Amino acid sequence: MKKILAEFIGTLWLVLGGCGSAVLAAGFPELGIGFVGVAFAFGLTVVTMAYAIGHISGCHLNPAVSVGLWIGGRFDSKDLVPYIIAQVLGGLAGAAILYTIATGKAGVDLGGFASNGFAEASPGGYSMMSALVTEVVMTFFFLIVILGATHPKAPAGFGGLAIGLALVLIHLISIPVTNTSVNPARSTSQAIFAGGIYLQQLWLFWVAPILGAALAGIVYKFLSPNE
Amino acid sequence: MKKILAEFIGTLWLVLGGCGSAVLAAGFPELGIGFVGVAFAFGLTVVTMAYAIGHISGCHLNPAVSVGLWIGGRFDSKDLVPYIIAQVLGGLAGAAILYTIATGKAGVDLGGFASNGFAEASPGGYSMMSALVTEVVMTFFFLIVILGATHPKAPAGFGGLAIGLALVLIHLISIPVTNTSVNPARSTSQAIFAGGIYLQQLWLFWVAPILGAALAGIVYKFLSPNE
Amino acid sequence: MKKILAEFIGTLWLVLGGCGSAVLAAGFPELGIGFVGVAFAFGLTVVTMAYAIGHISGCHLNPAVSVGLWIGGRFDSKDLVPYIIAQVLGGLAGAAILYTIATGKAGVDLGGFASNGFAEASPGGYSMMSALVTEVVMTFFFLIVILGATHPKAPAGFGGLAIGLALVLIHLISIPVTNTSVNPARSTSQAIFAGGIYLQQLWLFWVAPILGAALAGIVYKFLSPNE
Amino acid sequence: MKKILAEFIGTLWLVLGGCGSAVLAAGFPELGIGFVGVAFAFGLTVVTMAYAIGHISGCHLNPAVSVGLWIGGRFDSKDLVPYIIAQVLGGLAGAAILYTIATGKAGVDLGGFASNGFAEASPGGYSMMSALVTEVVMTFFFLIVILGATHPKAPAGFGGLAIGLALVLIHLISIPVTNTSVNPARSTSQAIFAGGIYLQQLWLFWVAPILGAALAGIVYKFLSPNE
Repeated sequence: MKKILAEFIGTLWLVLGGCGSAVLAAGFPELGIGFVGVAFAFGLTVVTMAYAIGHISGCHLNPAVSVGLWIGGRFDSKDLVPYIIAQVLGGLAGAAILYTIATGKAGVDLGGFASNGFAEASPGGYSMMSALVTEVVMTFFFLIVILGATHPKAPAGFGGLAIGLALVLIHLISIPVTNTSVNPARSTSQAIFAGGIYLQQLWLFWVAPILGAALAGIVYKFLSPNE
Repeated sequence: MKKILAEFIGTLWLVLGGCGSAVLAAGFPELGIGFVGVAFAFGLTVVTMAYAIGHISGCHLNPAVSVGLWIGGRFDSKDLVPYIIAQVLGGLAGAAILYTIATGKAGVDLGGFASNGFAEASPGGYSMMSALVTEVVMTFFFLIVILGATHPKAPAGFGGLAIGLALVLIHLISIPVTNTSVNPARSTSQAIFAGGIYLQQLWLFWVAPILGAALAGIVYKFLSPNE
Repeated sequence: MKKILAEFIGTLWLVLGGCGSAVLAAGFPELGIGFVGVAFAFGLTVVTMAYAIGHISGCHLNPAVSVGLWIGGRFDSKDLVPYIIAQVLGGLAGAAILYTIATGKAGVDLGGFASNGFAEASPGGYSMMSALVTEVVMTFFFLIVILGATHPKAPAGFGGLAIGLALVLIHLISIPVTNTSVNPARSTSQAIFAGGIYLQQLWLFWVAPILGAALAGIVYKFLSPNE
Repeated sequence: MKKILAEFIGTLWLVLGGCGSAVLAAGFPELGIGFVGVAFAFGLTVVTMAYAIGHISGCHLNPAVSVGLWIGGRFDSKDLVPYIIAQVLGGLAGAAILYTIATGKAGVDLGGFASNGFAEASPGGYSMMSALVTEVVMTFFFLIVILGATHPKAPAGFGGLAIGLALVLIHLISIPVTNTSVNPARSTSQAIFAGGIYLQQLWLFWVAPILGAALAGIVYKFLSPNE
C-alpha cells in the first residue's frame, strides 16, 4: 500500500512539475524557460522522486517503465496492474492541480495543455511515423538506462541521477516531434483535459512507449553482465 | 551556536544567490539568464550549502523546512525558534548585501526587488487562489523530497543534490505564478526592502509554505518505510 | 561480444541524442534549446550510458577515447579495432534513425545535418588552424578527465558524471568553431549523410581527436599518482 | 612536481573553458549560450578537474583558494608560492590557446577578451564599490563551500561537485557586475591580452578575492565541527 501511494504521489509530481513548467513557464515573455527548462523540469521530477521514494516503490512513475522492468525480470507481475492504476490516477491528480493553477489568470487559453501529439498536433509538424519511431526509440533507451544503472554492478546510489538525466536528455531531443511522452500516464493526464485530437491520438502514446520498453527488457538480457 | 551561525550564513547565501541572480542577471540584455538561470541559482545555493554546512546544522535555510521536519519528527522543538530567527536575519543580511551591490549603478530602479506576490504583484498575473495552491503544493513536495532523500534507507550522500535540484525544479514551474517562495525567510527579506504591496501580501508566503510543509510532515509518516 | 554490443548501442545513443538535439531542437522558433541544450544533450548521452553500460564495456563510445586509453595503458590492444568498428557502426545507425525522424516533416532541409567542419563549414567561420587546435586541445582535456576520474585514487562512482559533464563543457566552448567533434565516429556518422564538403573535411575529425587523445595518454603518465 | 603540473594544467583548462565559452559562444547569433552557458562552463571546468586531478594536487586552480585553504589550516605554506605561480602560468597558457583559436576568423574584434572590470569596464556598469563587495563576498562563500564540502564530516566524494556548482552559481549572480573573477589567475590571464583599462583595474581582482578567501578561512574556524 505504501508503494501504491508512493507511485501516486510521484507521478502526480512528474505531471505537475514537467507539464507545469511547460504550461506556466516555457513561453513566458523574454524570461521564459523554453524547451531547455521543460527538459530539466521533467528530468528533475524523476531525480527528486528517485531519492525520495525510490527506496519505497522503486519510483517507476510510468506504465512503460513498469512493463519494461517486468519484462526484464526486475518487477513482480502481481504489482503491475496496481502500479499502472496508481500512475494514471496520480497523473490525473497532477493535471487537475495544474489546471487549477493555470486557469487562475485572466484571459488564459490553455490550448492543448502540454499534450503529446503528431502530425498537426506535433509541435514541429512531424508525421505519425516520425512520432512512432521517436517514442519507441526514446523509451527503449530510457529503459536501457534504467535497467543498466540499477544493475548490481553499476555504481550504487547514482541510478536516480542517471535515470532522471536520461529523461532530461530525451526531452532535449524530442519535444519538437511529439512534445515527448515516453510515458502513457503523463500523456493520458493531459489528453483528458485537452480533449479533441489529443484524445484521438492518445493510443500512440500507450503503444509506442510500451513497445519500446518491452524491447529494451528483451535486449538488455543480451547486454547484462552476470550478477 | 555553530548551528545557528550556519543557518544564518546559509540563508544569507540563499537570498544573495537566488534573489541576486534574479535582480542582477535575469533580464540582462541579450545574454541574461532568464528564469532558467534563476531556478538553477536558487537550487544551487541549497546544493552548495547542503555539502558545506549540512553536517553542522542540517542546512534548513527556511522556516517552512524547519517546521516540516519538526512535524515529521526529524527536528527537535527546542531548536525551532532559534533556527527561524537565524534564517530571517540571514535572509535580511543577504538582501542588504544585494541592495548594496545592485544600487551601485547609475539610474537603477529595483522595482519589487525579487519579491513574491500574487494578483497584480504576480509576474504572470495569477490570482491569490493560484498562488495559494502553488505555494502549498510546491512546499509540500519540497518537504516530501527532503524527508525521503534524508531517510536512512535513501542512498547516503545524495540528499543535498536531490533537495537542491528539487528547488531548481520548483522554480522552473512556479516563478511565473508567485516569483516562487516556498520559504518565508526569503520572502520576508525581499518584502522589507520592496515595501508596499509586497509587505501587504507577505502573510501568504508565511502561511502557505508552512501549511504545505506541515502537511508533508504528516503525509510522509504514511509513506515512510520502517527504519 | 557483450562489450561490442554495448559500444554499438552506446554510440548510437550518443549520435541520436547529441546530433538529434541539434537537428531537431536547437533552432526551434522561440523555445529552441540553442547551443546550451545541445551541449547538455551530448554530455548526458555519456552520463547516462556511463552508468548503464560502463560496467559492461567501459563506455568509450568514441575511437579517440579508445586510442587514448590504449596509449595510457588502460585498454587492451586486442579490443581496439573491434571497439572502433562498433562505434562507427553504432554512430551510423544513430544517424539513420535521426534521418528517418527528421525527414518526417514537410519541406525539411537538413543542410549539413549536424556535421563538423571548418572554414566555410564552421558554424562561426573559424579557420582550419583554429579547428585543428580546438579539436586537439579539447580531446586532450577530455582524455585527461577520463584518465584522471577513473583512476583508482579518484572518488569511486563519480567518473561517469565528471566525464559526461566534461563533454557538456567541451560543447559549451567549441560548437561555434567546429560544431564540436572530439569523436571521429560522431563526425563520420553525420558526414556520410551530409556528403560534399563535410566528407572532404572528415579527415581532420579523425586526425585531431586521435592526436589529442594520444597526447593525453602520454602526458597523464607524468601526472598520474602511483596506484 | 606532479602537483605543480596538475595545477598548471587545471588552471589552463579553467581559463580556456570558462573564458573560452564567453569569447567564442556566449553571443553567437540566435543560438548563443549567454551567461547561463558561461556560468556552467566555468563551474564545469572545476567539476571535471576536481575528479581528474583532485587526488593529485587538491585542484585549487586559483590563488585565492590556495590562500583561503592556507589560512584555514588546510594547506601547507611551503606549497603556497609554487601553486600560485603554476596557476598564473597555466591561466596565461589557456589565454594564449584561446587567443590562437579566437583570432582564426575574419574580422574578429576581441574587445576586452573575457576580462574582469568595474565602472566603465563592468558589463552592467556597476561601480568600484559594487565590484569590491561582490568579489569579496562571492569569494568568501566560495571558500566556505570549499572548506565545508571537503571537511571529513561532509559526504565523501561529493566535494568536487559542490565546489564546481558553487562556481556555476557565483557566475549566475555576478557576471553583470564584474564579469566574475573570484580568481586572480583567471583575471590576470585575460587582462594581459586585453591591456588598457583591464590591466589598470587588475589590482582589484587580486585584492578582493584574496581578502574574501582569507575571511572565510578565519570564519570557518568558528563554524567547523570538531573532527
